[in-house]
Amino acid sequence: MITVEQALEIIVNSVQRTSRREEIPLAQAPGAVLGRDALADTDSPPFHRATMDGYAVIHTDGPGDYEVVEDIPAGYFPRTRLVPGKVSKIMTGAPLPEGADAVVPVEQTGGFVDLGQLAMIKGESRPGKNIAPRGEDMKVGDVALPAGTLIRPAEVAVLASVGCDPCHVYSRPTLAALATGDELIPPDQKPAPGQIRNSNGPSIIALAAEMGLACRSLGPAGDNPAALEENIRRGMDNDFLIISGGVSAGDRDLVPDILKKVGYKTLFHKVSVKPGKPTLFGMSASGRFVFGLPGNPVSSMVIFELFVRPALCRFMGAPYDAMEVAARMTSGFHRINAEREEYLPARLEWNGDRFSAGLVEYHGSGHFRALTRANGLVIIPAGVKKTPEGSQVRARFLGNIIMPAP
Amino acid sequence: MITVEQALEIIVNSVQRTSRREEIPLAQAPGAVLGRDALADTDSPPFHRATMDGYAVIHTDGPGDYEVVEDIPAGYFPRTRLVPGKVSKIMTGAPLPEGADAVVPVEQTGGFVDLGQLAMIKGESRPGKNIAPRGEDMKVGDVALPAGTLIRPAEVAVLASVGCDPCHVYSRPTLAALATGDELIPPDQKPAPGQIRNSNGPSIIALAAEMGLACRSLGPAGDNPAALEENIRRGMDNDFLIISGGVSAGDRDLVPDILKKVGYKTLFHKVSVKPGKPTLFGMSASGRFVFGLPGNPVSSMVIFELFVRPALCRFMGAPYDAMEVAARMTSGFHRINAEREEYLPARLEWNGDRFSAGLVEYHGSGHFRALTRANGLVIIPAGVKKTPEGSQVRARFLGNIIMPAP
Repeated sequence: MITVEQALEIIVNSVQRTSRREEIPLAQAPGAVLGRDALADTDSPPFHRATMDGYAVIHTDGPGDYEVVEDIPAGYFPRTRLVPGKVSKIMTGAPLPEGADAVVPVEQTGGFVDLGQLAMIKGESRPGKNIAPRGEDMKVGDVALPAGTLIRPAEVAVLASVGCDPCHVYSRPTLAALATGDELIPPDQKPAPGQIRNSNGPSIIALAAEMGLACRSLGPAGDNPAALEENIRRGMDNDFLIISGGVSAGDRDLVPDILKKVGYKTLFHKVSVKPGKPTLFGMSASGRFVFGLPGNPVSSMVIFELFVRPALCRFMGAPYDAMEVAARMTSGFHRINAEREEYLPARLEWNGDRFSAGLVEYHGSGHFRALTRANGLVIIPAGVKKTPEGSQVRARFLGNIIMPAP
Repeated sequence: MITVEQALEIIVNSVQRTSRREEIPLAQAPGAVLGRDALADTDSPPFHRATMDGYAVIHTDGPGDYEVVEDIPAGYFPRTRLVPGKVSKIMTGAPLPEGADAVVPVEQTGGFVDLGQLAMIKGESRPGKNIAPRGEDMKVGDVALPAGTLIRPAEVAVLASVGCDPCHVYSRPTLAALATGDELIPPDQKPAPGQIRNSNGPSIIALAAEMGLACRSLGPAGDNPAALEENIRRGMDNDFLIISGGVSAGDRDLVPDILKKVGYKTLFHKVSVKPGKPTLFGMSASGRFVFGLPGNPVSSMVIFELFVRPALCRFMGAPYDAMEVAARMTSGFHRINAEREEYLPARLEWNGDRFSAGLVEYHGSGHFRALTRANGLVIIPAGVKKTPEGSQVRARFLGNIIMPAP
């Protein structure tokens, strides 16, 4: 059986950045990846800009009383060239008038006076003082942001400033989720004996939404082979089809065979990981991907974190880093069967100088309430049976949320 | 001037969890806070559930060949009570038949055979083996999730499983963003001399979206007092009005006066922080809030992180923790004026056993490209002038994104 690391390598080698690009409104761009270099079409700042409210001066004039020859608010372009012995009132963000070489903040003057009056300049100055010079941050033609940049709020600000609205991005993958199992009913129905509500479909959709991705729901679907095949075929036109359930060794676990039949090539099936051993990953001839996740809710969510999230990032060309950290166990963990690498729901907390990892109550991969008490996963390597209290372990955070409160 | 800590205390004392609650589709619930306890309406598991594919047995029978009396797939409720000498085929997730007390995995048998045939049981078993007992995770009437829980994908799974669709949540705040300044034009226009494109409006909207919140755009707005007042009045019916620009000491910075005029009480104005000193926070008689952020783009984003984000979380009743960590400076930082606590854009990286903090190129609060290279902020306390390379500093992450790639 392959390891988590080997499975990730297969994913990374199979999923390439999409070649599809599109223009979308800037407001919809966060979470997407910039499709081409965003170029500055003006200098930034576009002019020598005052960084304080005060008076534009010629610094060699020094302290004294000087006539105010112009009033320069932000958004106004100055018309009067400053000559020695004159000053102009200027506001933060406004362009420096020609001739001026410094700004004296209003706090170092007698205060603001009207046009034509005398302003009392108290502070000494020097050239460039309280001025952001034109082009300091970016010059016309500079790459403001390179293609391949993940768009967060800070990138939105830069893209807005260089006029990238609409914005050219790599297309986000299309996704569909299909939860399988005859026992599943939709969440808004009341279970009959033997039935349970579909929770994997909604949680996969929520995990995708956290990444800014829309995911179509195809399920839940029963284990009837013909209906299952039809459901899978309905999902095949998506870049990623995410199936939960039906992938383990049981004789009713039909998903692997149907996937082959409809044209997906199996790239791996079964990974040495707990939970999540039956995990399947495949690709169709047209370059579309399928994940078969185990039906147990904790397995499904853990495998999404381990494999689906990096695959989706890679498709978009988004950087991916799970930020694995070292943490100290607040209690011990022992296991008898140490064959597989194991992921345990845990609370990771920063304690002044290091992370601690507290395992939460956990009855196994069907116990999804465990993950609601966790913000991360502790990683127990294959071969390790005893992890004593106080020992250092690898751990990673769940999803985008860094630290829920206790 | 108040400190960051004092400003946060004022925010925490002023903003209470909203009393508004509503029912929304579960698919829209992630990021919201559960409005009332979600109760289990069935045991979980709802029956003694097989955790492996195999045969349901009476463990005292031991190894041998036994007739298969029933085939129990997931989603099917067994009808045949098991008696000694008989077994039933059972799939993962399916209910255990009456009489049975263990499941022998198919791997420990001669394989699956048809109904009426003899199954070869090789493995020994014991009571409860490979069975998740009914109600192990939750019993009918148990609180599956308490009111006040932040809804993440793991919580979506639990809420789906107990049928909370639609789902009762605390209402999310309504938001409006207003960028002010005569120099501002919309991002899709070409600046004339003296003009710059509005970047604060779009970045505030993106910061809100990252929290799952919709934010209406009211700007950009010029500094004409009547028009500015009209714009502010248009935003007053929102739980939070977020204004950027127009709050510093300049004689054209009209926002504080207009806010008073239209009925907001100033709770603080000016904070001893760099960037972001002019920040204003106010509340109306009807319990609506206003933030006045400085117009410089870095200030506006940093102050959103410091003050607006916790205020919005508090309104929703969502836990808030900025996850401050300790990090080691990869270069030195010196400053002459150490009056204010200062926040510097930085790259925080985990290096095996600790975080390092690398300051990114930063020309001051107008230099928004700096934040696109950062994933966090280093905090330099008031009074500290010299922060040598290798020294330990407080640092925090930006937004929800933990760690962008290099």
